[in-house]
Amino acid sequence: MNGAETLVHTLADSGVEICFGNPGTSEMHFVAALDREPRMRGVLCLFEAVAAGAADGYARMAGKPAATLLHLGPGFANAISFLHNARKAGQGIVNIVGDHAVSHSQYAQAPLTSDIMAICGGVSDWLHRSKSPAEVAADGARAVQAAKRGQIATLVLPANCAWENATAPAPALPALMPGMVTPETIEKVAAALRNGKRSLLLMRGRCLERAGMEAAGRIAHATGARIAHDYFTPRITRGAGLPGIERVPYFSEQIVEALMGLEQIVLVGAPPPVTFFAYPDKPSWVTPEGCELLTLAAPEDDGTAALVALADTLDAKAPGNIVQLVRPDLPASGALTSDAMGAIIARFMPEDAIWSDDSLTAGPGLQKYLVHAPRHDAIFLTGGAIGDAKPMAMGAALACPGRKVIAVSGDGAAMYSLPTLWSMARERLDVVTIVCANRSYNILNIELGRVGAINPGPKTLAMLDLHDPVLDFVKMAQGMGVEASRAETTEAFAVQFADAMQRKGPRLIEAVLNV
Amino acid sequence: MNGAETLVHTLADSGVEICFGNPGTSEMHFVAALDREPRMRGVLCLFEAVAAGAADGYARMAGKPAATLLHLGPGFANAISFLHNARKAGQGIVNIVGDHAVSHSQYAQAPLTSDIMAICGGVSDWLHRSKSPAEVAADGARAVQAAKRGQIATLVLPANCAWENATAPAPALPALMPGMVTPETIEKVAAALRNGKRSLLLMRGRCLERAGMEAAGRIAHATGARIAHDYFTPRITRGAGLPGIERVPYFSEQIVEALMGLEQIVLVGAPPPVTFFAYPDKPSWVTPEGCELLTLAAPEDDGTAALVALADTLDAKAPGNIVQLVRPDLPASGALTSDAMGAIIARFMPEDAIWSDDSLTAGPGLQKYLVHAPRHDAIFLTGGAIGDAKPMAMGAALACPGRKVIAVSGDGAAMYSLPTLWSMARERLDVVTIVCANRSYNILNIELGRVGAINPGPKTLAMLDLHDPVLDFVKMAQGMGVEASRAETTEAFAVQFADAMQRKGPRLIEAVLNV
Repeated sequence: MNGAETLVHTLADSGVEICFGNPGTSEMHFVAALDREPRMRGVLCLFEAVAAGAADGYARMAGKPAATLLHLGPGFANAISFLHNARKAGQGIVNIVGDHAVSHSQYAQAPLTSDIMAICGGVSDWLHRSKSPAEVAADGARAVQAAKRGQIATLVLPANCAWENATAPAPALPALMPGMVTPETIEKVAAALRNGKRSLLLMRGRCLERAGMEAAGRIAHATGARIAHDYFTPRITRGAGLPGIERVPYFSEQIVEALMGLEQIVLVGAPPPVTFFAYPDKPSWVTPEGCELLTLAAPEDDGTAALVALADTLDAKAPGNIVQLVRPDLPASGALTSDAMGAIIARFMPEDAIWSDDSLTAGPGLQKYLVHAPRHDAIFLTGGAIGDAKPMAMGAALACPGRKVIAVSGDGAAMYSLPTLWSMARERLDVVTIVCANRSYNILNIELGRVGAINPGPKTLAMLDLHDPVLDFVKMAQGMGVEASRAETTEAFAVQFADAMQRKGPRLIEAVLNV
Repeated sequence: MNGAETLVHTLADSGVEICFGNPGTSEMHFVAALDREPRMRGVLCLFEAVAAGAADGYARMAGKPAATLLHLGPGFANAISFLHNARKAGQGIVNIVGDHAVSHSQYAQAPLTSDIMAICGGVSDWLHRSKSPAEVAADGARAVQAAKRGQIATLVLPANCAWENATAPAPALPALMPGMVTPETIEKVAAALRNGKRSLLLMRGRCLERAGMEAAGRIAHATGARIAHDYFTPRITRGAGLPGIERVPYFSEQIVEALMGLEQIVLVGAPPPVTFFAYPDKPSWVTPEGCELLTLAAPEDDGTAALVALADTLDAKAPGNIVQLVRPDLPASGALTSDAMGAIIARFMPEDAIWSDDSLTAGPGLQKYLVHAPRHDAIFLTGGAIGDAKPMAMGAALACPGRKVIAVSGDGAAMYSLPTLWSMARERLDVVTIVCANRSYNILNIELGRVGAINPGPKTLAMLDLHDPVLDFVKMAQGMGVEASRAETTEAFAVQFADAMQRKGPRLIEAVLNV
C-alpha cells in the first residue's frame, strides 16, 4: 500500500466521503487510490475554485468536511478565494495539495516550484507538509480532525510520499466537541432578557437550523426580544413553520437604522455587527452607543444547546411568531424586477429546497418573499469573494440528494465560477442556477457615490459596465452541457422557473433585470 | 488631489500606461482617478487571473510593466497562479491591491478582512502596505522600480489612503540596469567554445529576441556549438530569417536524449536544465554526467550584450544557419491532428505574428512546422499554471497593436480563463484563439503511466476525461461576444484559420483533435 492509498483509506475511515478534485501529474497516485476505496467519491472540477466552493457548500449542508485535491502552489492559489469564504463561514475543509517530490523541490527553476507553504498559509488554519510516506496517513487523520473543528486544513503531499510504500491507514481521531455554555452564563442572559430593556438576539452558526431557531422563537415570544441573523450568514433554516427572524441589512446606514434604540444585543455564535466596508465619515462599528453586548455563546460553543437551555430557564414554552406560508400571486406582467422574481420563486419553490445566494443588488428584492416561502435552507456568501453560489449549490446537491437546489448570482459574480456548470451537468445535479443579469457591476455604481467618488467620468463608468458585449449566459451554459433559457419578462421567468421546479437536473435561467 | 490620484499620476510618470482591473468598492477612488490621467488606459477584466495573465503578456511584448487593480486579499488570490507564471518568466507587474480602510481592518468579522499580507506574500518579490495617503505616491514609484527589474511588485492600498487628501505625485525612480558581463567571462567562454568539445548554448530571456538570436547564430556557426532554449521560455523571436534553434523537450527521457554526449553547456540567462516533474526512478537533474556548466550571463545580466561581445571576440561574422521560410502544402484531408494544424498555421500565419501557447500534448505537433514559419514572437507557459495563453495574448495584443496574435490552449487549460474572451471582444483585440479539444486531460493520461500509477480503474480514468458532457467552446465564446467556429477536419480548420488570418478582431476556433 503506497502513501496515497493509506491517505485515501484514512480519510474515508475518518468520515470524509467525497473529494472535489482538479488533479495534475503530482496527484496521479492519489487519483489512482480512489479506485481502491469504494467509500470515497471523486468529483472532477475543471477549476480549483469550483472544488473549494463545492466543499464549502457540502460542509454547510452535510455538517461534515469534504476533501479537495489541488495541484501544487498555483492550484491551491486558485482555490484561496472560496476557501476564504468557507473559513469566514466556519466550515472545515481538508485540502490535499500535491507537491513536487521532496528531491525535486530544490529546483527553483522547475516551473511549478513555488513557496507552497506561504501560498497555502495565507488562508489555512491548519497546515502541514508530509515528511515521509509513513507519516501521510496520520497527517491525514489530523487534517480531518482540524476540519471537523471548522478549520481550513491543508495537507501538502509531496509526490514521493504518495508513490512510495507506506504501511497502513491511520485510525480516525476523536472530533473535538463544541464548548458547552455554563449555567451561570445562561442565568445571566436570562436575567438580562427579563430586565425589560429593548433586546436583540443576534445568531450565527448551527443555531440557525431548526432546533436553535425554535428555541430562539420561544425566547422572543416570552421576552419580547427581537431575533436576527447577520446579512451574510453561513446557513439558516427558515420559511413557513419556523419562527420569523430579521436579517441585518447590507448597507451601513440601514444597519444603523435597524439596530437603533436597542439597549442590549445578545450574541449567539455571532460576532458584534460591523459594516461590510468602511466609508468616509460613516461608522464601521454599528452597535448603538450605550447598547450592551452580552455573549450567550461564542462561535466555538454549542449555540443551539445554549438557546434551548435559555428558553427552558425562561420557561418559554409557546412557539411564538411562526411564519405562515405565503404563495404570492403571480406579479403583474412586464419587465422583470428582482421583486417580481422573488414572488415567482416563493410561489413555485418546493419545500426543503436549498437556496445558495451570492447576489448583491438583487438580494433584497428576492428575500422579501422568500422569508414566507416553504421551509428551506439558505446559504450565503460569507467572505465577500463573489461567485460561490454555483459551486456551493453543487456541493449542497451532493450533500443532500433529493432536495432541489437553487443557486442565484449576479452576472458579474457568475463569471467567477463558470466551469461549475460543467460539473453540475456531469454529475446530473438537481440545481437550477439563476443569473440576475443587470449587465453591470451594479453594486459598484451604487458604491461609487457612497464612497464619495463623485462625478465619475467615462473611463470610470466603463469599468463598471457589462453591456459591451452583452454576456449570453444561455450560450455559456449550453456550452457546458446545461439546459438554459433567458427570461426578459415576468411571464417568461414564471414559466421557466415553474418548469424548472417540475423537472430534475441542472438548468440555468438568465433573468434579465430591468434596473 | 487624493491619494489615488497621486498614485495614478505617479504610475503614468513612471511609464506605466495600462491597468488591467477587476475593481470593487475599496478601489472606487483609484478607478475614478483613471479619468484624470489621460496617459493611463483602464481595461476591465471579469476575473483577476485575466488581469494578471494580461499584464504578463503585456510585459513580455512591451518590455515594460503594466499595472493590475485587484480587490482585497481574495481578489489578489485569484491572480496568484498567473502572477506565478509571470514571476517564473521574470516579467515585472505592479499590483495595486485595494484593502479595507486602516480603521476597518481591525474587524476580523468583516467578510473581506483577511491576512492580506500573507496572501500577497506568497508570490510577491516586493510587497508594501501604504501607511498614509501622503506616502502612496512614493510607494507607487518604488513598486514600478521593482517591477522594471522583473519583479512582482505588490502595493496594498488601504481605502482611506486612496480617498484622503495627499499632495502630489512622486517622481519616477531610475530603473536599475541589467548587469554587464565582464570581459574576463567573455574570454573564458570564448576559450571554452574554441576547445573542440561538444557544446550547447542554453538561452533564456531577452537574448532570445532578434539581436541575441543573431549573435548566437554567428557563435554557433563559428564554433560548431548547438544553440537551444528551454521548453517553457518566456519569449523567443524565431522563424524565417532568424538562426535555427533547438527547443529542449518536455519529457525527462527526451531531454536526456537531446543533451546526451554534450561536454559543456553555456548558460545564457538560463538556469541549468531540470525536468518539469519528478518521476520515480528518473533523474530531475538532466545535465549529462561529466558535462561542464559554464555561465556566460546570469538571468539578471544583459545576455544579449554578452552574446554580441562573445561573437565579436570569436570573430564570428557569418550569420550561420538561417531558417528558410517554408509554407507547407495543405495536409491530406480527413480527421484533424496537431501535425496537420501546425502545417496549416505555418502556411497561413502572417509575418510578425505573436504566438501565445499553453498547450501541452498538442504542442510538439504544432511546433514542428512553426519553426519554419514567417518570423514571429512566441510566448509560452512558464510557471505550469495552465490557461494563460488567452490572457497573455490579450496583453500582447494591447502591447502590439497591428500585430496578429494567436493564442493556443488545450481544452482543459482553456477552461481556466474563460472570461478573457469577453475582454478581447470588448477591446476589439485582433486575437485568434485556438482551443485544441482532445476532450480529456490528455497530458494526465500520459503522465499516469509515467509516474507508475498502473492499472487505473474507472474512477481514475473518469477524473481525466472531459467527454461527459462535451465542452462546446463555440457556444461559450459566442456567449462572451467572440465569433467562433468548430473544425473537426483538416479542410475545415484550413478554411477557418485562413479566413481568420485575413480578417481582424477576436475569433475562436475549436479544433477537435483526433487523438
